[in-house]
Amino acid sequence: PANKQAECEAPSKKEEKKVNKTAEADQKRKLEGLTKDSPMRLRMEAYNKRLQAEITAAIEKLDGEGKFKVDRWNRVEGGDGISMVLQDGKVFEKAGVGVSVVYGMLPPAAIAQMRARHPNIGDSKEAMPFFATGISCVMHPHNPNAPTVHFNYRYFELGSVDGGEPISWWFGGGCDLTPAILYEEDAVHFHRVIKDACDKHDPRYYKDFKKWCDEYFYIPHRGERRGIGGIFFDDLDDKSQDELFAFVQTCGNAFLDQYVPIMERRKDMPFTADDKHWQQLRRGRYVEFNLVYDRGTKFGLLTPGARIESILMTMPLTARWEYMQEPDLKAHGKLLEILRAPKDWIPL
Amino acid sequence: PANKQAECEAPSKKEEKKVNKTAEADQKRKLEGLTKDSPMRLRMEAYNKRLQAEITAAIEKLDGEGKFKVDRWNRVEGGDGISMVLQDGKVFEKAGVGVSVVYGMLPPAAIAQMRARHPNIGDSKEAMPFFATGISCVMHPHNPNAPTVHFNYRYFELGSVDGGEPISWWFGGGCDLTPAILYEEDAVHFHRVIKDACDKHDPRYYKDFKKWCDEYFYIPHRGERRGIGGIFFDDLDDKSQDELFAFVQTCGNAFLDQYVPIMERRKDMPFTADDKHWQQLRRGRYVEFNLVYDRGTKFGLLTPGARIESILMTMPLTARWEYMQEPDLKAHGKLLEILRAPKDWIPL
Repeated sequence: PANKQAECEAPSKKEEKKVNKTAEADQKRKLEGLTKDSPMRLRMEAYNKRLQAEITAAIEKLDGEGKFKVDRWNRVEGGDGISMVLQDGKVFEKAGVGVSVVYGMLPPAAIAQMRARHPNIGDSKEAMPFFATGISCVMHPHNPNAPTVHFNYRYFELGSVDGGEPISWWFGGGCDLTPAILYEEDAVHFHRVIKDACDKHDPRYYKDFKKWCDEYFYIPHRGERRGIGGIFFDDLDDKSQDELFAFVQTCGNAFLDQYVPIMERRKDMPFTADDKHWQQLRRGRYVEFNLVYDRGTKFGLLTPGARIESILMTMPLTARWEYMQEPDLKAHGKLLEILRAPKDWIPL
Repeated sequence: PANKQAECEAPSKKEEKKVNKTAEADQKRKLEGLTKDSPMRLRMEAYNKRLQAEITAAIEKLDGEGKFKVDRWNRVEGGDGISMVLQDGKVFEKAGVGVSVVYGMLPPAAIAQMRARHPNIGDSKEAMPFFATGISCVMHPHNPNAPTVHFNYRYFELGSVDGGEPISWWFGGGCDLTPAILYEEDAVHFHRVIKDACDKHDPRYYKDFKKWCDEYFYIPHRGERRGIGGIFFDDLDDKSQDELFAFVQTCGNAFLDQYVPIMERRKDMPFTADDKHWQQLRRGRYVEFNLVYDRGTKFGLLTPGARIESILMTMPLTARWEYMQEPDLKAHGKLLEILRAPKDWIPL
């Protein structure tokens, strides 16, 4: 893949920025080599980068022609990222997998919002050091029979000074599938694989996180969900770091099993102009969800100096909006029904 | 044009809604016939509907093939609207002109936001009756040489009980042009016509409202404006109702002179696949502005029971997003420069 170095900061602001002390301590630790006792920050970062390499290699193989373009970027205050995008491939219109690692200071207003869910965050009115690392992925295939997929797994911590223990930390993430043309067996498969992953760690996870996913991906102005669901969780700190890290890794490792078998079935299916047209309209809804409601996108758009290309990597290559479009209910009535009233794909 | 009646309210909510007393009084006035002493509400509504009919007739003529589809809707609490959309015409990919008339109750939180700019709004902690009527228009041509255009003119009032005088009222509106391929003569023409309109009413208007437009249509996450500007104004109550109504009418009446001569020059120009591709990418930016920043769209998306098809009538038929797209600076460098640093099209 092509390789390119980029800085995500405007050069004029460089002097003002202080390198985060935890970032410095972590740099040293990385040079010494990671162990299972290394801070979770470093272990999750390393996992995200391994998973990104594994998934992009498998997706290049699945596509058969397209190659991921690799952009690496560094933050002056600490942290870096790798954005990998395959565009105009044989199977994929656009597929992006990004990893980001961010050390910085969180303003009091943002801390206050987190305090409600994490009461151990003290009552400080000053900015606090934070760390975040995540992997996120969105893939939009050409073939309207093949579904768009998304996943994201992330680790966040607050208050680690000079590389020490954080005051608060949590994991978040999830995965969801967005078909334009519904194949119920695909939905069942996608949910089955992630349910098995969840069940290895906690019998309540799948049920709770499936429900959370159906709530999160709701588009109020359409009265519809974005897709047929999956799982979604945030602020997860109810077990030890090691236990939750193991859970997140099981989920991340399940991704290729969730998606590749579906793609193998769908990527070469014949389709009509009507199918393509319908897919383009559904891609319009995807854009609406991402620009209007998605937390990650909104946060990114509001962050000065954020790398906009990485944030909007999730957008489809093409989308369409028609006034008063009347869907072919014979073809798509069942999908629309499920987007309005989510279904339990797996009996609980 | 096709004609269709629709209600924008969910039937189950009908019983709860009370008909606005001012709406009732105004219905009676309409039956008696309007005069120049009728409330501004009714005069502006009548103007908007006349302007909509005039513009859609002229645009159908310009298109030569496409016809506007007409949707009429009614609000149980008072008010109505007409959405007119021409889709997949010969010249226009999508052109929408909507008029809305809304009588309702405004919640205290919304009133509080308005009080800063309209101090005569009292300190009431209760919902107040409001009225709003506006005309809005967005036209997206097929030919990438032909620019997208938008205008909107509106009148708002607060606190009219039983059809009496409002506590506060104001006008707002503006127009702006969004070319994918820059022709400076088009930009100069568009600005020249609206400057002449402004100059008939106040020598400061064009200068002030041109600047306001450049500020309003800024897309912070792109560091660009949506297009090459025009005018934008809001909360205008610094002259009498009659004087400001005259100004708004001069602006509205100027629209066809602003846009049709440009379209005559551009609509049949030859273009390349590269031109079309660039237009699609610029349409993506248009979607970003509308969904993320446009006040009217955001207000509409957050309003329960709003007519979503009318709100999203402004979206282009098609749009495109590419990762790390590198624009052809030889072809489009000048446009991008102007989107970053707006130009004075007319020496002041």
